[in-house]
Amino acid sequence: MAATVKSSSSALPAPFDLAGFLATRTAAVNQALDRFLPAATTKPATIHRAMRYSLFAGGKRIRPALCLAAAAACGGDEADALPLACAVECIHTYSLVHDDLPAMDNDDYRRGKLTNHKVFGEGIAVLAGDALLTQAFEIAARCQGWPRYSHQNIILELGQAAGSLQLIAGQVADLEGEGHRISARQLRYIHERKTSALLCCSVRLGGMSANCTQVQLKALTSFGYNVGLAFQVIDDILDVTQTSEKLGKTAGKDTKAQKATYPAIVGLQRSRRIAARLTQQAFTALRPFRGKATALAALAEYLLRRDT
Amino acid sequence: MAATVKSSSSALPAPFDLAGFLATRTAAVNQALDRFLPAATTKPATIHRAMRYSLFAGGKRIRPALCLAAAAACGGDEADALPLACAVECIHTYSLVHDDLPAMDNDDYRRGKLTNHKVFGEGIAVLAGDALLTQAFEIAARCQGWPRYSHQNIILELGQAAGSLQLIAGQVADLEGEGHRISARQLRYIHERKTSALLCCSVRLGGMSANCTQVQLKALTSFGYNVGLAFQVIDDILDVTQTSEKLGKTAGKDTKAQKATYPAIVGLQRSRRIAARLTQQAFTALRPFRGKATALAALAEYLLRRDT
Repeated sequence: MAATVKSSSSALPAPFDLAGFLATRTAAVNQALDRFLPAATTKPATIHRAMRYSLFAGGKRIRPALCLAAAAACGGDEADALPLACAVECIHTYSLVHDDLPAMDNDDYRRGKLTNHKVFGEGIAVLAGDALLTQAFEIAARCQGWPRYSHQNIILELGQAAGSLQLIAGQVADLEGEGHRISARQLRYIHERKTSALLCCSVRLGGMSANCTQVQLKALTSFGYNVGLAFQVIDDILDVTQTSEKLGKTAGKDTKAQKATYPAIVGLQRSRRIAARLTQQAFTALRPFRGKATALAALAEYLLRRDT
Repeated sequence: MAATVKSSSSALPAPFDLAGFLATRTAAVNQALDRFLPAATTKPATIHRAMRYSLFAGGKRIRPALCLAAAAACGGDEADALPLACAVECIHTYSLVHDDLPAMDNDDYRRGKLTNHKVFGEGIAVLAGDALLTQAFEIAARCQGWPRYSHQNIILELGQAAGSLQLIAGQVADLEGEGHRISARQLRYIHERKTSALLCCSVRLGGMSANCTQVQLKALTSFGYNVGLAFQVIDDILDVTQTSEKLGKTAGKDTKAQKATYPAIVGLQRSRRIAARLTQQAFTALRPFRGKATALAALAEYLLRRDT
C-alpha cells in the first residue's frame, strides 16, 4: 500500500494520509465487527469460529472504508455509519465464502489462507455464509435511522444490492458465462452486478448515515458505480499480471476457468485505460463535495493503482 | 387434510373450518409471494426460476398461516401481516434448499419433487437459497411498521430467529450430531433452534403486525415455542412411520443418517405423548385471547394430528 497517495486530480487539493486513514478505519471496523458477532466460543462454536475465520482473514476493508469516507464527505459522524460499514463487510465476506465453494469457483486459497470450506468442510461453509448474510441485516438494523433515511430505506438498500437483481445476479451470470464467448457489454453487466452494486451501496449507505441530500446521494451513486467498475477491471488485470503469492489467491484462475475478463476481451492496455477513465469519472462525480471528499478521492486513486 | 377439525380443547369452543382457512390463506400468501418475487423471466432467469421452483413446490404454508392466525387473534388485519408471513416462508424455503444440498442432508426429493440442486445444479441452488434469504429481509422491510413495533424491531426479530444462535445453530448441531449418541436434552436443543425458533417468530411477527400488547406477545411466544417443538417431534415420528411416497421426501432418512430423533431416543409411544403434551401447553398459552385464537388453536391441533 502506498504510504501517502498524492493525486493530480482536482478533487484532491492536498496530500491525504490514506495509509493512516485505512489503518484507523480498519481497526475501528474490526473492533465493531468483533462486538457485533457472537464470540468464537458461543455455542455452537463451530459456526462462530467459521464466520470469524473468514471475516477476520485479513480483508482490506475497502467497502467499510468507502462507507465511512462517504459519511465524512457528507459532513456526518463516521461512528453513525459504523454498523452499515460492518453490514456491508459481512455481505462481502459471505459472498466470498459461497463463491469459493467447490460448486462455484472451487478455490482453495483466499487472502493467502485456506478457504472456509477447506478448513470447516462444505456444509459448515454454506451455513457460515448464510449466517454472515443474516448477521448483515441484523447489524444494519441496529443503526440509528435518520430523518431522510429510515431503517426501512437502509434495509431495502442493502437487500437490493445483495439480492437476485444485483450481487447474486452477477454471480449467476458469471457462472453461466464460463466457457462461453461473451461481449464487452455482457462482461460489463456482470461486473456492474458482481462488484459495482455492493461498492455503490457502501458509499450510498455512508451518505445516508450522514442524512445526505438527494444531490449528494446522486453524486455518491455515480462515484460508487464508477469506482466499483474500475475495481473489477483492475481485479481482472491483476489476475493475469500478478503471481498467486502476491494476490493471496490463485492467479490466472479466470483464464483457466475460461471466464471472461477485460484483458481477455479488450486487451491489457485498453483495460488499463478503461480503469483510469472510470476512476476519472469517479473523481468528477465528487465535484459537488467541493474538496470535502478527500478520503473518497484518495481511495479511488488507491484502488486504481493497487497491485494486490 | 381433515376437512374440519373439531377439538376437545377449551380453547376451541366451536368447530373451525381449518381447511377453508388454510385454502384461502395459502392462496393469499402465494399471490403475495408471486408479487414480491421478480418474474421467472427477469434476467438472470435461472436464479428466479430456481427461487420460484422451491418457493412454489407445494409447501403447506404452515408458518405464514400461523403468522396470519396470530394477527387475527390479536385483532389485527391479516393483510398487514402478509409481508411478514411471506418473509418467514422465504426463510423457511431457503433453509430447505440449503439443507438438501449434498454437503448437508444430500436429499434428492422434497415435497415429491426433485430438490433444487438436482434440477438447477449445486451452484445455482446455493445462490437460490442466498437470494431467498436476502429477499426475506427485503419483503419484511416492506411492511408498514407499527407504533409498538418498528421496522427495526421486525428485522431484528427475523434476523435473530434465522441467525447463528437459532435456525442456523440448529442445523449446525444437527450436522454435528450425526452418528453420535446424543441425549434427549441435546435433541431438544436442536429442535428448539431448527424448528421452534422460526415457528415462534412467525406467530410473534403476526402479533406484532397487529400492534399486540406485551401480554399477547408473551402468550404467542409460549404458543409458538410449544407448537414448534411438537411439530418437530411429529416430523421425527412421521419419518419412521410413513412411506417416502406419502411424505414426498425420503422416509427413514434420519435413522439411516444416524440422526438423533425423538422415537430413537425415547421410543414411539413416549414421543407421541410428548407431542400431545406440548400441544396442550400451546392451547393453554392461548388463554389470554379468550376464544379469539380459534385459528391458532385449530392449526396446533392439525399439526399434531397430521400424517404428512
